[in-house]
Amino acid sequence: MTNVRVAGVGLTHFGHHPERTSRDLFAEAGLSALDDADVAAGDVESVYYGNFMGELSEHQGHQGPLAAEALGVDAPATRYESACASSGVALRQAVRDVRNGEVDVAVVGGAERMNNLETAESTEALAIAADDLYEVRAGMTFPGAYALMASAYFEQFGGSREDLAHVAVKNHANALGNDHAQYQKEITVEDAMESPPVASPLHLYDACPVTDGASAVVLVGEAYAESEDLDAPVAVTGTGQGGDKMALHDREDVATSPAATDAAEEAYEDAGVSADDVDLAEVHDCFTIAEVLATESLGFFETGEGVDAARRGVTTSDGDLPVNLSGGLKAKGHPVGATGTSQVAELTKLLRGDHVNSEHVPDATTAVAHNAGGTVASAVVHVLEEVEA
Amino acid sequence: MTNVRVAGVGLTHFGHHPERTSRDLFAEAGLSALDDADVAAGDVESVYYGNFMGELSEHQGHQGPLAAEALGVDAPATRYESACASSGVALRQAVRDVRNGEVDVAVVGGAERMNNLETAESTEALAIAADDLYEVRAGMTFPGAYALMASAYFEQFGGSREDLAHVAVKNHANALGNDHAQYQKEITVEDAMESPPVASPLHLYDACPVTDGASAVVLVGEAYAESEDLDAPVAVTGTGQGGDKMALHDREDVATSPAATDAAEEAYEDAGVSADDVDLAEVHDCFTIAEVLATESLGFFETGEGVDAARRGVTTSDGDLPVNLSGGLKAKGHPVGATGTSQVAELTKLLRGDHVNSEHVPDATTAVAHNAGGTVASAVVHVLEEVEA
Repeated sequence: MTNVRVAGVGLTHFGHHPERTSRDLFAEAGLSALDDADVAAGDVESVYYGNFMGELSEHQGHQGPLAAEALGVDAPATRYESACASSGVALRQAVRDVRNGEVDVAVVGGAERMNNLETAESTEALAIAADDLYEVRAGMTFPGAYALMASAYFEQFGGSREDLAHVAVKNHANALGNDHAQYQKEITVEDAMESPPVASPLHLYDACPVTDGASAVVLVGEAYAESEDLDAPVAVTGTGQGGDKMALHDREDVATSPAATDAAEEAYEDAGVSADDVDLAEVHDCFTIAEVLATESLGFFETGEGVDAARRGVTTSDGDLPVNLSGGLKAKGHPVGATGTSQVAELTKLLRGDHVNSEHVPDATTAVAHNAGGTVASAVVHVLEEVEA
Repeated sequence: MTNVRVAGVGLTHFGHHPERTSRDLFAEAGLSALDDADVAAGDVESVYYGNFMGELSEHQGHQGPLAAEALGVDAPATRYESACASSGVALRQAVRDVRNGEVDVAVVGGAERMNNLETAESTEALAIAADDLYEVRAGMTFPGAYALMASAYFEQFGGSREDLAHVAVKNHANALGNDHAQYQKEITVEDAMESPPVASPLHLYDACPVTDGASAVVLVGEAYAESEDLDAPVAVTGTGQGGDKMALHDREDVATSPAATDAAEEAYEDAGVSADDVDLAEVHDCFTIAEVLATESLGFFETGEGVDAARRGVTTSDGDLPVNLSGGLKAKGHPVGATGTSQVAELTKLLRGDHVNSEHVPDATTAVAHNAGGTVASAVVHVLEEVEA
């Protein structure tokens, strides 16, 4: 078993790019990652590609070969789809394959183009991440689903809209210097409180935007990194995946996310770390309540105490445990299929010290990425560690 | 590295089931496979699920968790999409994970529901396996693409429509006793020749039908099979995957399928066998010309000689190298996401001796499955061997 290094990362700007295809976006991110890694396209042995709704937004399936072609890579390529966790599951598979010596050099990434759709169309397209027969046909949308989760959380554990507003304010503040972010715009708790309602108790500023963008990371085996003298100081040391019933009504409890808890426990055990060792995290804050749930699933806070931690500022850039220093899905944006690997790209830069927000975590060595699909029917967690100065 | 055993297989009837959802179809196939394996759903550690067009035909993405739930499995589940090779790539990943000890017990399968769409809709949905920007918008459909490949083949190597008709006649004959097959109907060369043209030189009987159905296999590590005293005499000993440019016009040659050749060479090397060792094969005959190309890619015949072999009957049930004893995509049917694992299910039964056509291959020990996506921009090949009497 070999150790898995992140040799390079690449990101497009996340935002409004309706005129660019997914393949075009992915070409930019992937070539940027190869350049960052100092790895030639000809050395790539496999491409792991995440995309969620290409069939609906671009009339394009079978995107694996297109993703490889976009990078000039002549190697097998497969598309992974697990809703908003699509590139997270792609990453997990690549980590396993590199670790087990099946592949020495892998490009993993994802892309999504959504803003070419009308708003009602993209809301409907996003809904395919839920159970069509039993949720979507009953009128469920994702803002509605997370509103149910927020209501259940408030009822069981307390908390308020204003507590959640702190998550939005923090993530917008973190995105201010991030050139890749969709929103580089400071907001206040009052702005969030006064934003229009979307699905009670969630308002506009509780929700991530509709985003076009792509991300990629180059993974290599440690021996390859050494033989090629690559500068790859960050390793993926743990991977975990969890699953849950698809529909909210089939779960015992909707105020917790056991799939993410399972994924985190597996990833920590795999890496030989515990939640206490984690210095920073990127979590799947498609809605503010989702960040709260994620920080509990990751073991940072006890169940029911995440909302209090958010209010107290524990997870701000100057807090004990910075969460979503990239700006998160909330402010950086959420190009669905690209989100999982974008988290790892951001964390890699934060650990390497070349991220705009690295100054907030100068001594950080251990980071966690949490990527969720649907209402956390799928969850993937990865542990990253700095292994060289 | 552990050896990977096929502990059980399951198939629905392949055919016209527009009233059944993919999850319903997969439940039948998956539970049948678990029953065949004598493995409890609670022991399954991961589900690998192939589906191609659920977003378009059922307004359903994120099918991994639904697939697990359909079997009563509480474990991570991921959906793989590589057009017509979707469950083939899922299988490859499961083989790697079981082999490397990441997972001891995996369910791999796929499902597709297509006949709930109108014919024009399903043709358009299938086209997402090609390059939307540069092929589909120019009017390309899959019958058209394979017609181009057939024309190029005839021009470079010779051969005729009548030669291809022998492929259709053979596969219909093989499907006669297969209860899972969409068509249990004998046809003659004359029937095929007189069938209406679809895209010259291909006629109706050169094409596989539009099919609903599901398939599943249970893979286990050898140690698990022994500890649980499972009857699992067939092993997956080789896996290979190849990729190619997506669009036909970007390839140097469209009368050969280098992605499949690459996949076959990798799978043979992985298994430590050669094409000469192969006793029978299931290949991706979405069109008759595709079977000819596949038998060349697999190294059974020299490039340009596959069509002659088809005419001479080398690949019939009584020939030297039976191909598509199940009836193939042509007569058994092609529920896209289910096809890859259905090939392995059929080969497992053929090797075990409990397939209706096992009598044709009583001494067979080595079999190959060839699953292709699009116009073979993706290809996956697996080698199966009987390892116990």
